[in-house]
Amino acid sequence: MNPLMKPLRIKALGKLEKALIARHLGEMGLIERILSGFSEPKRDGIIVGPGDDAAVIELGETARIVVTTDMLVENVHFRLDWSYPEALGFKSVAANLSDIAAMGGEAIGIVISLGIPPMVPVKAVDRMYRGISGALSLFGGDLLGGDTVRSSAIIISISAIGVLVGERPLLRSGARAGDKVCMTGSVGRSELGLMLLKRYFELTHRPRKAALEAWAERTAGYFKGRLPSSLRKTGYACISKHLMPSPRIREARVLSAFGPSAMIDVSDGLSADLMQVARASGVGLVLREKDIPIDTNARAVAQALGTSPHKIALSSGEEYEIVFTIPAAKIRPAARALAKRCGTSSEVIGEITEDKESVVVIGTRGRKRALVETGFRHF
Amino acid sequence: MNPLMKPLRIKALGKLEKALIARHLGEMGLIERILSGFSEPKRDGIIVGPGDDAAVIELGETARIVVTTDMLVENVHFRLDWSYPEALGFKSVAANLSDIAAMGGEAIGIVISLGIPPMVPVKAVDRMYRGISGALSLFGGDLLGGDTVRSSAIIISISAIGVLVGERPLLRSGARAGDKVCMTGSVGRSELGLMLLKRYFELTHRPRKAALEAWAERTAGYFKGRLPSSLRKTGYACISKHLMPSPRIREARVLSAFGPSAMIDVSDGLSADLMQVARASGVGLVLREKDIPIDTNARAVAQALGTSPHKIALSSGEEYEIVFTIPAAKIRPAARALAKRCGTSSEVIGEITEDKESVVVIGTRGRKRALVETGFRHF
Repeated sequence: MNPLMKPLRIKALGKLEKALIARHLGEMGLIERILSGFSEPKRDGIIVGPGDDAAVIELGETARIVVTTDMLVENVHFRLDWSYPEALGFKSVAANLSDIAAMGGEAIGIVISLGIPPMVPVKAVDRMYRGISGALSLFGGDLLGGDTVRSSAIIISISAIGVLVGERPLLRSGARAGDKVCMTGSVGRSELGLMLLKRYFELTHRPRKAALEAWAERTAGYFKGRLPSSLRKTGYACISKHLMPSPRIREARVLSAFGPSAMIDVSDGLSADLMQVARASGVGLVLREKDIPIDTNARAVAQALGTSPHKIALSSGEEYEIVFTIPAAKIRPAARALAKRCGTSSEVIGEITEDKESVVVIGTRGRKRALVETGFRHF
Repeated sequence: MNPLMKPLRIKALGKLEKALIARHLGEMGLIERILSGFSEPKRDGIIVGPGDDAAVIELGETARIVVTTDMLVENVHFRLDWSYPEALGFKSVAANLSDIAAMGGEAIGIVISLGIPPMVPVKAVDRMYRGISGALSLFGGDLLGGDTVRSSAIIISISAIGVLVGERPLLRSGARAGDKVCMTGSVGRSELGLMLLKRYFELTHRPRKAALEAWAERTAGYFKGRLPSSLRKTGYACISKHLMPSPRIREARVLSAFGPSAMIDVSDGLSADLMQVARASGVGLVLREKDIPIDTNARAVAQALGTSPHKIALSSGEEYEIVFTIPAAKIRPAARALAKRCGTSSEVIGEITEDKESVVVIGTRGRKRALVETGFRHF
C-alpha cells in the first residue's frame, strides 16, 4: 500500500510547524491546531508523547525510558568565528542531558548525527569528541552510536535516552493554582555572552577553508585579549556560560524527591518556558521581576552594554537552570536540600494562579503586564 | 572540574572520523584506530555499543532497547529539484526503522530534529509530516518528539528506539566460516534511480525561494513526462525505489526466528556492507557476482545508461534489503518462510570462509578479485 495514495492524517506538529503556522494562523489558531493535532499513540506504553522536554515510554513492569533530541546548526546556534570544537560537542550533550534530567530521568547514553564539511581538519573532530566525552563523563551517559554525513554547514544532532528515576515523570502540565514558582541558580549570562561574542568576535567574510582551520586550532582562551579590558572578567563569565553551559543534573534529581508539580529547564528563556508551563497546565501565573535572580557578572555586562538586566533575565535562553512549581510547604526543605547537597541556591520567583487568561509579570516598579515570549525565535 | 583542563581519551570514533582519518591514515591504520578507540561503556547493560546498525541496552530483567540515528541533508542526500516532501519524510523514517529491524528489534518510535529554512512553505512541512506519518503507519512506531531549528539547508535527523524481539541482537560480527551469505529481494534500482534523477531532473541554478516553493508543490508524478520514453516504466521503478524505499521489517522479523549468525541492511552498498560483516566477524568471504539478484528494471536502465548492472549491484546503497549469514542447513526453511509469510524471495550469494585476509568476489566470467568499497563515500 502506498501511503501517498490516500490522504493521511497529520499525526503530530513539531516546533517547526508551530513556528511556521504561527506566522499564518496567529498564536491562538496555532495553539488550537497543536492541541488537536496529536492522534493517540498506537502503543500503550507511551506515557508522555511530543510536547514536553522529553518523551516517556513504559516497557514492561519496571523500565520507563525517556527520549529527547536537540540539534545545533552552524550560523544559527553558533559561528566558527566565536566557538571552538570542544565547546560545541560539550554544549550539544549538555542540552540533551538537561532535558532528560528536567523530566526526572537519568541518562543512559546518546546517539549523534554529525554533519561535517569535508574540509574540516581531523583535529577539529577529535576535539569535538573530546567535548562530547567530557560532558558524558561529567553528567552521565555513554556514547551509543552515530551517523556522520557530509554537509556544507557543521551540524550536530544528538538524541539522548535515559530511564525515569522517580515514580512518575515531571511534566510541564502539572502546575496547580497556589503552587509557588521557583528556580535554581541565576539567569542572564547566556544571552549576554552571545551578545559579546557577536559584538567583539564576529568576522564578516573569510574563505571557508581558512575559517574551518582556524576553528580547529582555536582554544577557550582565544578571546581573552579582545574584549574591552573593563569587560574582561565579567564578559568572560558570560561567554563561557554561553559556550559551555552546565545542565542541573544533580539538582533535578534532588528536586524530584520533593515532588514538584511541574519541572522544566530554561532553554528558550524564562518567559517562553514559563508560558509553556502555564499553557500546558491550564493555569495562570504571576512572576515577580524583582525576585528573579540575575547573575552579578550578567548585571555588570548588561550595564556596560546599555541593556536592562531584567529584560535579559526574561529572554535569555540556553541557561539550563531548572524551573519548578511546588506547594509552598515544600519550598524550604527543597531549597535546603539543593543548597546542602548541590551547593545550589534557589528562589521563589512567582505563583501559580487559577485564571489561565492571566499570565503576568510584575515589573520592578510594581507595574503588572502580560508575559510575552522574548527569547530567540527560529522563525 | 573542567573537562577541558585535562587530556581526555577520545571514547569513540564515528563514521565521520573513520572517513576523515581514512584520508590521512589509509584503510588499515583507520581500522586499527577504530577497533582500539572505544573504551568500555560505563553502564553494565550496554550489550552493543557504537559500530553496528544500532546500539542495544539491557534495562532490568526483560527490556532490551535498540537505538539508532540517521540524518539526511539537502544537496548531499537529496536535492529539491528531484525530491518531494512526503518522500523525504518517508525515507528518513525507513532508514532508521530498517536499522532497528536489522538488529532484530521492533520500533517503539522516533524523535525528529528538523532543520528548515524560514522560507519553506507550511505546505511542504505538512507534506513531510505526512510522509513520516505514512512510514510509521506502514512500518511501526510512533512519533515521540522533536526539535526544529532554522537552517539554510533542509536537514532531517531521526533517531529511532525499539525493543529487541528475540533472545539476542543480530550483529554484524556473528558470521562463522562455512555459513552461507544470503540476501532478500534484489538490488540495483536505488543507485540507478539516483543516476536518472541527476541526469534528467537536476537544475543548475534557481532562486532559493522559487526552488523551495516548487518543492512544496511537486508530487510523485512530476517527473513522468521528462524521462525519455524508452525509460519511462523501468526508470520510474528505479526512481521510486530511490526516493521512497521500503525497509524489510517483516522479513527481518521472520529471519530472526531462524537464528542467522549475522544480519545487516544494505544501506552503504552490498560490497561495503559485506566488508563490514567480514571485518566485524573476523572472517573471509567469497561473493559470487552471477548469483546476486539484480532487479529487472535495474538491468534495463543500466543497459540504457551504458553501465554494468553487476557493478551497480555491488555499489548501490540505500537499498534496505537484508543480508544475512546462516548455516547451510537453515537456508531452505528460512527461504520458504520468507516466501510464504512475506512474499519475498531470497538467494544465496556467497560463503563465509576462514581466511580473514581473503574477502573476494568471483566475477561473472569466473575471475576472482578483492572486494572493494564502491558505494557513495561522504568523505
